[in-house]
Amino acid sequence: MTKITPVILSGGAGTRLWPLSHDNQPKQLLPLLGSERTLLQETALRTADSSRFAAPVIVASSRHGDETAQQLASVGVRPSQTILEPSGRNTAAAITLAALRAEPKDLLLVTPSDHAILDASRFLDHVWAAVPLARRTLLVTFGITPLRPETGYGYIEIGEPLDAGQFYAKRFVEKPDGATAARYVDSGKFLWNAGIFMFEAQTYLGAIEQYAPNVLAAVRASLAGVTLGEDYLHPDPVAFGGVPSLSVDVAVFERSDAVAVVPVDIGWSDVGSWDALYELGAKDNDGNVLNGQVTSLGSRNCLLRTEGPKVVAIDVEDLVIVATEHAVLVVPRGNTQRVRDAVQRVLAMT
Amino acid sequence: MTKITPVILSGGAGTRLWPLSHDNQPKQLLPLLGSERTLLQETALRTADSSRFAAPVIVASSRHGDETAQQLASVGVRPSQTILEPSGRNTAAAITLAALRAEPKDLLLVTPSDHAILDASRFLDHVWAAVPLARRTLLVTFGITPLRPETGYGYIEIGEPLDAGQFYAKRFVEKPDGATAARYVDSGKFLWNAGIFMFEAQTYLGAIEQYAPNVLAAVRASLAGVTLGEDYLHPDPVAFGGVPSLSVDVAVFERSDAVAVVPVDIGWSDVGSWDALYELGAKDNDGNVLNGQVTSLGSRNCLLRTEGPKVVAIDVEDLVIVATEHAVLVVPRGNTQRVRDAVQRVLAMT
Repeated sequence: MTKITPVILSGGAGTRLWPLSHDNQPKQLLPLLGSERTLLQETALRTADSSRFAAPVIVASSRHGDETAQQLASVGVRPSQTILEPSGRNTAAAITLAALRAEPKDLLLVTPSDHAILDASRFLDHVWAAVPLARRTLLVTFGITPLRPETGYGYIEIGEPLDAGQFYAKRFVEKPDGATAARYVDSGKFLWNAGIFMFEAQTYLGAIEQYAPNVLAAVRASLAGVTLGEDYLHPDPVAFGGVPSLSVDVAVFERSDAVAVVPVDIGWSDVGSWDALYELGAKDNDGNVLNGQVTSLGSRNCLLRTEGPKVVAIDVEDLVIVATEHAVLVVPRGNTQRVRDAVQRVLAMT
Repeated sequence: MTKITPVILSGGAGTRLWPLSHDNQPKQLLPLLGSERTLLQETALRTADSSRFAAPVIVASSRHGDETAQQLASVGVRPSQTILEPSGRNTAAAITLAALRAEPKDLLLVTPSDHAILDASRFLDHVWAAVPLARRTLLVTFGITPLRPETGYGYIEIGEPLDAGQFYAKRFVEKPDGATAARYVDSGKFLWNAGIFMFEAQTYLGAIEQYAPNVLAAVRASLAGVTLGEDYLHPDPVAFGGVPSLSVDVAVFERSDAVAVVPVDIGWSDVGSWDALYELGAKDNDGNVLNGQVTSLGSRNCLLRTEGPKVVAIDVEDLVIVATEHAVLVVPRGNTQRVRDAVQRVLAMT
């Protein structure tokens, strides 16, 4: 039986979950969901059944190579290889690295490392059902049934039917404005693009050669002369720095006609804001999500979280309060999309 | 010319300004008003003019003797003596200690160490004007013109007139309920009892002997056999622990008929809550009071203060946010009277 090779993209940084996540501690390396496990660990364990999955390929930032390896080892996951990017060059480059290191017919299941999927079993059912599509040399995407007119995500429009519950993708669209997003959701024809893909390595390489040949050439150059066969692969920093920074959506999926989309309803979240974490979290009787040494006295519908000082919130409502040893954030729920910009301003000031 | 001897009571602890103040760091030892100086230093400097004041007597907790001495020395204040209480036995005991160590005719000006007086000059004018009252062997109190129907303070009712702007005190009343407080304030006949007093040592000792002889006897016993003439005076812990714990209001002022009261409007605050500190603080253009590494982004009318982690408050209003290395407090303004109880609950839990 075919085994699928998980390709876990773990190169992201981000400040939307500041002060917990920051450049030196990206969110996939944090235990954000209230369990002991980090998002990276949860992601790797989702596809850890060795009867069905090959050992994963990890594409991570070289800055976090040790932490990444340590986290995976501690949950018993041994990557077949870990590719450490000397700099972040976006998802087209990261996937190209993995595809170049695979056998041509390897089935690659590409997933972000920093999202939550609450119904992993259903997700895997969809993945297995889509194997024939990938074998037909389609680029398969898994699109999330939208829950709200979110303007922070890209959308995939559903096209002609393929097999049951599987479709051609009609088009990929970038983050829409609010009115457009509402229209998309009402139409029932659009899905959230969650960055989850499956294809044969050679299918992807053919597409990237056709639609973004400069990405392929530059990534290939970054691997020339690199010592292979080691656990850690270090692309050449200068050559890799010259790779055009393109998302795989822009580089390939928006341009190819051979894209399939599978609508999935799997309890997905990009864990992209404190609001998202509030939604995902277990609530106490007052609707609070509590993590760490925090105390709510009369407070309601708050996210209270600390990794540092004890937090006491008295009689407040609908607030996000997150503390670390170094920083404390207080922001109303529903407003946490502002955190990224705000933090960049603050960090620029200091 | 008579010199007045300041008696500064610095034995208090308190959790109402938690997490900044706590048992090991009472509020008089903190620089709460936005200046470099602590409340104790501000208090001592208020009566530091050596042409008019003798060196002060400090009554402090033995736990904070070194810190107290260091803080006073650093602003050039040299107490004539520092009496270190082995335990807190309330204000009647503290004042009795000071009075027993004074000459009979010494004029003692008793002040708490943890209040703010924004108009110190006017306060001193009232003090000097009241010297003749004290010389007439009255117990003089300075009562604050009330600004609101505060239920957290005791009140002094104004009685028959003495000299201009000076009156007999008709009665002392404990903390009233809200309706009573409102009636007091409307009547124009009641003042806040701020715990500021002046009398000859012998007047006070006569009164305490008359109204609370067990306090006098027990304090006297705690000084028996104590080495005198040193900078630091250590009452005997066992004897002092046996002193009845009574406020001077209850022990003396509520019972004596020989009490004068001088209404004063001097920018007084007991700095007894974060609300009080917000009122006292300098505001930015958005009405925020900012102290330490704090950033307001779109926040209004907040008190933001840190001694530890950086604090970022985005789009919040009317909140108190105070951080230290060990704890973070978030509470709505106007509600900070709850802090004391809340903190006691939290500390009991941990």
